[in-house]
Amino acid sequence: MQELIKKLVQKNNTKIFMIVLDGLGGLPLNGKTELETARTPNLDALARVSATGLHVPVSYGITPGSGPGHLGIFGYDPLKWEIGRGVLEALGLGMELKNTDIAVRGNYATIQEGLVKDRRAGRIPTEKSKALTEKLQEAIPRIDEAEIIFAPGIEHRFAAIFRFPEPLDECSDNVNDTDPQKVGKPPLKPVPGNHQSERVARVAEKLVQKAHEILKDEEAANFILLRGISQVPSIPSFEESFGLKALAIAVYPMYRGLARLIGMDTPPVNGDIKEEIEFLKENLNDYDFFFFHVKKVDSYGEDGNFEGKAKKIEEFDEHLPDILALKPDVLIITGDHSTPAVLKSHSWHPVPVLLHSPYVLGGLSQGFSERECAKGELGIFPAYNILPLALANSGRLKKYGA
Amino acid sequence: MQELIKKLVQKNNTKIFMIVLDGLGGLPLNGKTELETARTPNLDALARVSATGLHVPVSYGITPGSGPGHLGIFGYDPLKWEIGRGVLEALGLGMELKNTDIAVRGNYATIQEGLVKDRRAGRIPTEKSKALTEKLQEAIPRIDEAEIIFAPGIEHRFAAIFRFPEPLDECSDNVNDTDPQKVGKPPLKPVPGNHQSERVARVAEKLVQKAHEILKDEEAANFILLRGISQVPSIPSFEESFGLKALAIAVYPMYRGLARLIGMDTPPVNGDIKEEIEFLKENLNDYDFFFFHVKKVDSYGEDGNFEGKAKKIEEFDEHLPDILALKPDVLIITGDHSTPAVLKSHSWHPVPVLLHSPYVLGGLSQGFSERECAKGELGIFPAYNILPLALANSGRLKKYGA
Repeated sequence: MQELIKKLVQKNNTKIFMIVLDGLGGLPLNGKTELETARTPNLDALARVSATGLHVPVSYGITPGSGPGHLGIFGYDPLKWEIGRGVLEALGLGMELKNTDIAVRGNYATIQEGLVKDRRAGRIPTEKSKALTEKLQEAIPRIDEAEIIFAPGIEHRFAAIFRFPEPLDECSDNVNDTDPQKVGKPPLKPVPGNHQSERVARVAEKLVQKAHEILKDEEAANFILLRGISQVPSIPSFEESFGLKALAIAVYPMYRGLARLIGMDTPPVNGDIKEEIEFLKENLNDYDFFFFHVKKVDSYGEDGNFEGKAKKIEEFDEHLPDILALKPDVLIITGDHSTPAVLKSHSWHPVPVLLHSPYVLGGLSQGFSERECAKGELGIFPAYNILPLALANSGRLKKYGA
Repeated sequence: MQELIKKLVQKNNTKIFMIVLDGLGGLPLNGKTELETARTPNLDALARVSATGLHVPVSYGITPGSGPGHLGIFGYDPLKWEIGRGVLEALGLGMELKNTDIAVRGNYATIQEGLVKDRRAGRIPTEKSKALTEKLQEAIPRIDEAEIIFAPGIEHRFAAIFRFPEPLDECSDNVNDTDPQKVGKPPLKPVPGNHQSERVARVAEKLVQKAHEILKDEEAANFILLRGISQVPSIPSFEESFGLKALAIAVYPMYRGLARLIGMDTPPVNGDIKEEIEFLKENLNDYDFFFFHVKKVDSYGEDGNFEGKAKKIEEFDEHLPDILALKPDVLIITGDHSTPAVLKSHSWHPVPVLLHSPYVLGGLSQGFSERECAKGELGIFPAYNILPLALANSGRLKKYGA
């Protein structure tokens, strides 16, 4: 399909907005979902004149992480392109990643007589982790041919990049975690799973040794465990795939990082919905496609804060007229996955989608909610079909066949 | 997908019930389907608070046999895993099948001067067939290295197993039917289609010869024709695929046999719905997944008995509270295919599905019927997605991707 789309793409001057309310989909509490509870007159009015539906982020029953969730709505089959945990962690800490890089999640840990005593070093304070990470960075700028770049995380967490001098072969990241997952066991040795990953395993092993030499006198954080060793997937760029010059507008580094993986421009943005809209307005002339990310909807869902999630949706609804005033040719409002407050986590449930353009039926949903979108003209469909619909509705796809 | 599911599966103590009303889906007679005609207050109430939809057993327009119908709802793509006719016949006669076995459907036939005169030997009485089959079994316990096991069927039908000493290679069953399909023609010789099937063809040929020697003085049934020569498909087991220890509760041998092909436990059960519920209750602690089969819905459909099919659905509805009283974490009620009484046969129509768990939207169907389920949150979707949904709703699937 992606090959076909690429062949049919044509350019024009239309503007496509994709608004992602992270974790939008929900489940009922006392009969109503978060979206059904929220007072959203603007979204409801728009839904009544839009194409609506529910998208399945990955597949029936599958709960997506943020990586697969976003890949799907960006038009990529998330079963084809996998984003490793190390890569996602590095993106979340705002690190830049290249195709020469291996990214790793690290934990500071406590080791005693060769056995792991605490896999999280007693959850050392973030400030302590920051200081230790700076110490490691200073002492270990390079291992073999790889530059080593550290970034501190929350509490015992950090990330590291091994930057090799040239782009990596496929499957260079086939190296196991060193975390034994249980205390009282020795840390595992990083073992290469194939020829390509041998030098990565060697760097990982040396990194663990060198870090231990530097940290050995620390009371708690005297060791590091490495997890999620992964390389940047070689995903075809968004512009190459869909002919769209794209700007990501996201406050949180991880989402800008995901967008950067497919070549979107990702300047930092501060603030909240209002500031994001300002930013969109300023850049309106310079791009075709705008990925507009609202994080807090998901955060409240993850916290089990049903009311907070509903309120954040209401807040977005209040800003919707300002977005409509920018007159996008195609406006999509959806989420990357569901995060029902009653589950306090991402879930497998299909996600409401609204697509507004002059070329829709409309009239099938009485408002913007899970149940109303289930009645819509888009049906229940794979997330990666949203992008082709956006292209079609903006006149950017030629006819297929004679 | 099945590989992905396997990676994401985690175990817990939840109970999943899958109730299969065989041939559930129907078509209208005087405006209403069997399900719409039946008085089903319990099913209707449950549908109103459940996730509903229509599953497509194999593909649009494809009418499934019982084999593909059940494989789909058990989570297997029925286009990938084929169950041969000989295997299905043997399972239906209650025979045990192993991966060393070739199963064959047999017909007693009449041959005269080398030409088939009657392909069904004048539909000899079942008692006669039984006596002849016992005679064959006594005279032909073994051919070459294969043990031969016979089972009598209805009228002119029987089944046979060739049990080889070791597991068979793939495609060992590539041997044609010997039935010429028309009278006045000679029976066909079983010809191997590849190297692996040579010894199977040899056993088949000798079986036909030996049977003719024994039967040659019979007036009608003086010959046998072999059809549907097939081996047990090497389907990955249900427990290995989905992490579920499963019990099949089915009165008819064929359905237990289908369940046994994927490793479900299949003790015999006698009686009807009431006895099946008793059996479920007794075994509730020992399994994770319960396949609960109600055959008669299909039988009435096949007979064109619209009222009888509706009545059997009503009878199930009366027992539904007893099933709900067992408090399954996930309850699925569906069919393996449609059997509209107006067609007197299986059909291609999508099948109503109801999935009850605490994690559904509900509220989209006003009752349990084809038309109400078409409005539901599950949409119209491939049958093999039911199982991943059951796993997700019971908390048995981890998140995909970071």
